[in-house]
Amino acid sequence: MPRAAGTPNPRGRHHRQGQRSAPRRRGVRAVPAAAARTEIIRAQPPAAGRALRIIPLGGQEEVGRNCTVFEYGNDIVVLDVGLQFPEEDMPGIDYIIPNISYLKGKESRIRGVILSHGHLDHIGAVPHILPQLGWPPVYGSKLTLALVRKRLEEGRLAHHLRAHEIKSTRDQLQLGSLRVNFFDVTHSIMDAIGVIVSTPDIAAIHMGDWRYDLEPVAGRPTDFSHLNRFNTRRRPTILMMESLGSTKEGHQGSEREVYANLRRLIVNAPGRIIIATFSSMLERVGQIIGIAEGLGKKVALDGFSMKTNVEIGKRIGYLKFKPTTVVDISRIHSYPADRVIVICTGAQGEDRAVLMRIASGEHRYLKIEPKDTVVFSSSVIPGNERAIQRLKDTLYRQGAEVYHKEIMDVHTGGHAFIEDIKLLLLQIRPRYLMPVYANHYLLREAAKVATSIGFPGEDIFVLDNGNVLEAGARGVRILKEKIPTDYVFVDGLGVGDISHVVLRDRQMMSEDGMIVVIATVDRRRGKLVHNPDLISRGFVHMKENRKLIEQTRDRVKQMFAGNLKDLDENYYKDQIRNEVGEFLYSKTQRRPMVLPVIIQV
Amino acid sequence: MPRAAGTPNPRGRHHRQGQRSAPRRRGVRAVPAAAARTEIIRAQPPAAGRALRIIPLGGQEEVGRNCTVFEYGNDIVVLDVGLQFPEEDMPGIDYIIPNISYLKGKESRIRGVILSHGHLDHIGAVPHILPQLGWPPVYGSKLTLALVRKRLEEGRLAHHLRAHEIKSTRDQLQLGSLRVNFFDVTHSIMDAIGVIVSTPDIAAIHMGDWRYDLEPVAGRPTDFSHLNRFNTRRRPTILMMESLGSTKEGHQGSEREVYANLRRLIVNAPGRIIIATFSSMLERVGQIIGIAEGLGKKVALDGFSMKTNVEIGKRIGYLKFKPTTVVDISRIHSYPADRVIVICTGAQGEDRAVLMRIASGEHRYLKIEPKDTVVFSSSVIPGNERAIQRLKDTLYRQGAEVYHKEIMDVHTGGHAFIEDIKLLLLQIRPRYLMPVYANHYLLREAAKVATSIGFPGEDIFVLDNGNVLEAGARGVRILKEKIPTDYVFVDGLGVGDISHVVLRDRQMMSEDGMIVVIATVDRRRGKLVHNPDLISRGFVHMKENRKLIEQTRDRVKQMFAGNLKDLDENYYKDQIRNEVGEFLYSKTQRRPMVLPVIIQV
Repeated sequence: MPRAAGTPNPRGRHHRQGQRSAPRRRGVRAVPAAAARTEIIRAQPPAAGRALRIIPLGGQEEVGRNCTVFEYGNDIVVLDVGLQFPEEDMPGIDYIIPNISYLKGKESRIRGVILSHGHLDHIGAVPHILPQLGWPPVYGSKLTLALVRKRLEEGRLAHHLRAHEIKSTRDQLQLGSLRVNFFDVTHSIMDAIGVIVSTPDIAAIHMGDWRYDLEPVAGRPTDFSHLNRFNTRRRPTILMMESLGSTKEGHQGSEREVYANLRRLIVNAPGRIIIATFSSMLERVGQIIGIAEGLGKKVALDGFSMKTNVEIGKRIGYLKFKPTTVVDISRIHSYPADRVIVICTGAQGEDRAVLMRIASGEHRYLKIEPKDTVVFSSSVIPGNERAIQRLKDTLYRQGAEVYHKEIMDVHTGGHAFIEDIKLLLLQIRPRYLMPVYANHYLLREAAKVATSIGFPGEDIFVLDNGNVLEAGARGVRILKEKIPTDYVFVDGLGVGDISHVVLRDRQMMSEDGMIVVIATVDRRRGKLVHNPDLISRGFVHMKENRKLIEQTRDRVKQMFAGNLKDLDENYYKDQIRNEVGEFLYSKTQRRPMVLPVIIQV
Repeated sequence: MPRAAGTPNPRGRHHRQGQRSAPRRRGVRAVPAAAARTEIIRAQPPAAGRALRIIPLGGQEEVGRNCTVFEYGNDIVVLDVGLQFPEEDMPGIDYIIPNISYLKGKESRIRGVILSHGHLDHIGAVPHILPQLGWPPVYGSKLTLALVRKRLEEGRLAHHLRAHEIKSTRDQLQLGSLRVNFFDVTHSIMDAIGVIVSTPDIAAIHMGDWRYDLEPVAGRPTDFSHLNRFNTRRRPTILMMESLGSTKEGHQGSEREVYANLRRLIVNAPGRIIIATFSSMLERVGQIIGIAEGLGKKVALDGFSMKTNVEIGKRIGYLKFKPTTVVDISRIHSYPADRVIVICTGAQGEDRAVLMRIASGEHRYLKIEPKDTVVFSSSVIPGNERAIQRLKDTLYRQGAEVYHKEIMDVHTGGHAFIEDIKLLLLQIRPRYLMPVYANHYLLREAAKVATSIGFPGEDIFVLDNGNVLEAGARGVRILKEKIPTDYVFVDGLGVGDISHVVLRDRQMMSEDGMIVVIATVDRRRGKLVHNPDLISRGFVHMKENRKLIEQTRDRVKQMFAGNLKDLDENYYKDQIRNEVGEFLYSKTQRRPMVLPVIIQV
C-alpha cells in the first residue's frame, strides 16, 4: 500500500522488509541477567507454525473485568483478573467478574496468571477466579502482589497464593512454550508493568494501563529503550494498547504540576487541609506526607483502604516517613489547625466514605470548619457525577475552601491521551495494533488516531470480549469462534447466581413498587374465608390511599364471587394480575408488580 | 472600602455616588413605545419604604425546578415554574416540581407568572402549578408560550391558559406595584428573555439562562445597550445571574463554529447523516434544514418532541423551509443515501428514544449502514454519561462514523463561562449580586469569579431554596425566615403523594429484592394449616435455590411449632422479620425486605 511521502510510518519497517534485525537480536542475548532470572515452569519446544491465540474475556467492551487469555499449543497464560463495577441497570450487584467458562477443564494447562498492576479492575476478581483455576502461580510486582494478598486475606484465602514477584523488568519467564518479558510503565499506581508474550512467530506487547510522564515526581517512567532490547525486532509485534484516553486531545498532564499545586495549597492553607484521593495512589500519598514533613505538619489518614494501603506501602518500603509525622485521626485536635493535613477516601461521593461523613457532620473527629481547605485530588469516575456534585454542595455549604479538577490541576489521570498514543506508536512501531481495555467506541477512536498518522487500517484489530485473535507466522486474524463472556454477577456471597430475571424484578420493583394480593379460599365451602389481604411496598403510601386499597380489595372480592370449589389457581392468579394491574394503572398510571397468592384451606 | 488602583469596578458607580442618573432617566422616558405597550393589571401606588422580597422556591440548590417569587406589598410575581429530573436515589419518580405551599392562600395576590424561556426546567411544571395558583396570567415570548400551550394540551388544560405574549423587549408591564421590563438573551433555545423587576427602591435584573454569543448564526444577541436604557441607573440593582458554567474557563464557544462544523460534516458525508440533538434547539434544527436546502438534500425528522417542536416553529414562523425539503421518515429510502439527513431525538442515550432504536436495529425505517454518519449535536446531561457511552458503543459497532463533542465542536451549550461572567458584571455593574439556577457549589464559584475582579464579597448573596432576600431602600439582606421547599414528586398521576418511605422501600427492594412469608394459622386448632408460603422477587432465583427456600420454610415452621391459640400477630411478625432476615443474610449476605403475613382462618 503506497504511503504519502512524509507520512511517518508508525510500524516496524524492519518486519515489512524482513531484514536488519540481526544486530538487535544480538543485543537481546547480551543481557545475561535476563537469562539468569528465567524461571522455567515447564519447558516445551515451541512447535513452529502453531498460532498464538489471544482471547479477551473482559475489558474489550467496558472499563473493568480486564482479563486476557494467551493460548499457545498446550500452554495458557492469563493476564489480569479484574472486576467491573455494576451499571445502573444492575441494582444491588456488588460487581462483575470475568466469565472463565472457557478455562474450565483447561486448568492444568494454565502456566501462570500475570497481574499488570494493583487496581481492582485488574486484580479484584482474584478471590473468585484463582480458586476456580486451581491456584496457578501468580506473577506481579511487589506492590501488586501485596494488594492481591490483602484482597485474598479478606476471604481467608491468602495461604493458597503461589506468588512470584517480578523483581526487575529484566526478569524473563518461560511459561510453558511462551516467553514472557516485562517493562516499567507509568500509571496512577506504583509498580505498574507492561508485558511481552512471545512465541517464535510473534510478540504481543501489552501495555497494561499506561500513560507518559516525561517528568515524573518519583518512580520510573515508561521504559521504551528497554522495550527495544527485547526481541520485538526479531518477529512481528502486536501492540495491545489500553485506549481509555483516545478521545482526549493533547498529552496527559504531568504529575509534577499536580505536585506543585498540592504543595502550594498546603503551604498557603489558612487552616486544616483535607485531601481526598484514591487509596491506591500511594505515590501521591507519599508526596503529600513528604510535603508535610518538610513543613513540619502532621498527617492523619482516614478510610479503611487508605490506612491499609499506606500500611502496605510502608511495609514493603515504598513509603518512607518519620513515625511521628503520621498521627491517629482521633488526635488531630491536639495540633493547631494549620499544622494538620488529613488524607482520606471518599472523593467519589460514596455515601458512607470518610469525606461524605466529614461533610455531613457525621464523622467522629472531624467536621468542616470555615478555614478548612478540601482538595479532591481525583478524577470523576463516570456514573458518580451527581454524587460528587452533592458532596461538593455540602462542603461549600459548610464554608470550606474547595479545590477540585474543575478549578485547578490537583489530579492527573493514569491514561494516555491522543498525542501520547501517537508517540507510543512511533516509538514502538508495532506490526499490528489491538486497542484494549476501554469501551468499544474508545477502541475505535484509538484506531482512528493510529490511522491518522499512517497506520494501515487493515492491521488494526478491534475485538469484542470473547473474540479470538489468532497470530502466527502467516499473519493475524480474528476467528469466527466466539467464547462465552456473559456477565458473572457477584452479589453478597452469591457468584453467578443472579440472573437477568432477578435484575429485571429488582428494577420493576424500584420503579413502581409491588403489591401482594392474598386470597384465602375455603375449599369445602367454595368461597373466600375473609377479605383478601393486600400488602404493598414502594407503590403508594398505604395509609394515605385507603380508598384505592379498598377499591382494589373490592375488585378482588368480585373476582372470587362465584363458586370456588375445585378452582383453577392459575386462572385466578392471571385474573388478579391482569385486573388489579389494569385497575391500579388506570388510577395511578403506575405499574407495580402484582403478586397473586391463593391459599386454600 | 478602598479599591486597588486599576481594578475595574464591576458595580454601578452611579449608585455608589447617587448622582448622574438624571440624563439616563430621561432616556427611559424617551421610549414612548414602551409606555404605549404597558399593560396595567392592577395599578397600585408603590408605598415607599416597603421592601421587595425575593424568594427562590427552587433552582438554588440544583439544576431544575426553577421558580422564584417576587413579593412586594400585596403583589406577587412568579418567575419560571420548572421541573427537575430525579436523582438516582429517587427510583420511579417522573420528575420534581417546585413546592408552592408558600403561595397557598395568596393566589389572589399573584399578578402574573413570567416564563423566561421554553426549557422544561423553566416551564415543565405549568400543568401542575398553574391550576393550583388559580390560573394567573402568564407572560412569555412567542415560542415559550407555544411550548407552554403544547404542554398544557397534553393534559387537556390549554383552554385555561391566560397567555400574554411579550412581543418586544420594549414591552413594559405594570404588575400591581411591580414594574417589569424585558431584554433579549442568547441561550440554547430561541426567544429567551431576561427580566427586570423594579420597585421604586431597587431593580432586580434576572438573566434567565444566558450566554454570550458575539457572532450568533441567527437571532439576536443579548441586548445590553437596551438594559442601559432602563431605569437600572436610577436605583440600586441586584443582578440575579444564572451560574451553571462558573467553573468553566474562558468563554462559551460560538454557535458559528458549530454551524461551520455541521455544514462541513453534511457536505462531506459519504452517505446518510443522522443528527441527534435536543428537540428544543429549534434554531439549530432550522440551520440544518437550511444547509440541506442549499445542498438539495432532504430532511426527515423523527422523535415525537422533535416533530411537534418543528411543527410549532413552522406555525409561529420561526422555521421557514420549502414544503418539499422535509420528508416523512418512512420515505427516506426513496432518495439516494447521500441526499438524506435525519434529525432526531435520543442524544442522551434514552432507552426508547429514536437514536437508540436506530442503533439497536429496532427502528422501523432506519438501521445503521456502514456509510452512515451520526452526529451527537448535544451536551451530556450529568447522570446520562454511561447511557450515552453504551449508545456510542452500539453505533460504532454498527460501523457508523460518529461525531460528538469529545472529538469535534458539534455543540455549544447555553450557559456562560467564567470570562463571560466577568464581562457581564463589567457591563451591567450591579450593586448586588445573587447567583442563581445552579448547584450550590457553582453559585459559590460564581461568587468567587465576581470577587476575583473586585466585586465586594459582602454584596454577594448566595441563597438556598426557601431563603428570603429582602431588598429595600435600606439595603439588601437575607432574612432568618425559611419557606418550605421540600421535594414534591410527580409519579404517574400522583403529585406529592410519594414519600421518602415509599422511595426507601423502592431502593431496598432494588438492592436485594423481597420475600413474603405467609403463615396460615388455624385459630381453633392452634396450629399452622399447612406449610408456610414463601414468595420472593429480586432476591435469588427461586428455582435454583430450592434448598435455601426449604431451609427458610423450616425455620418459619419451627417458629410456629407451639400452641397458636390467641397468637400475638405482631410478636410473630417481628419474629419472622428478624429470624428470616438474619438467616438469609448469614446464607447470602443479602438483605431482602422480609414481609411477614399471618392469616388466621
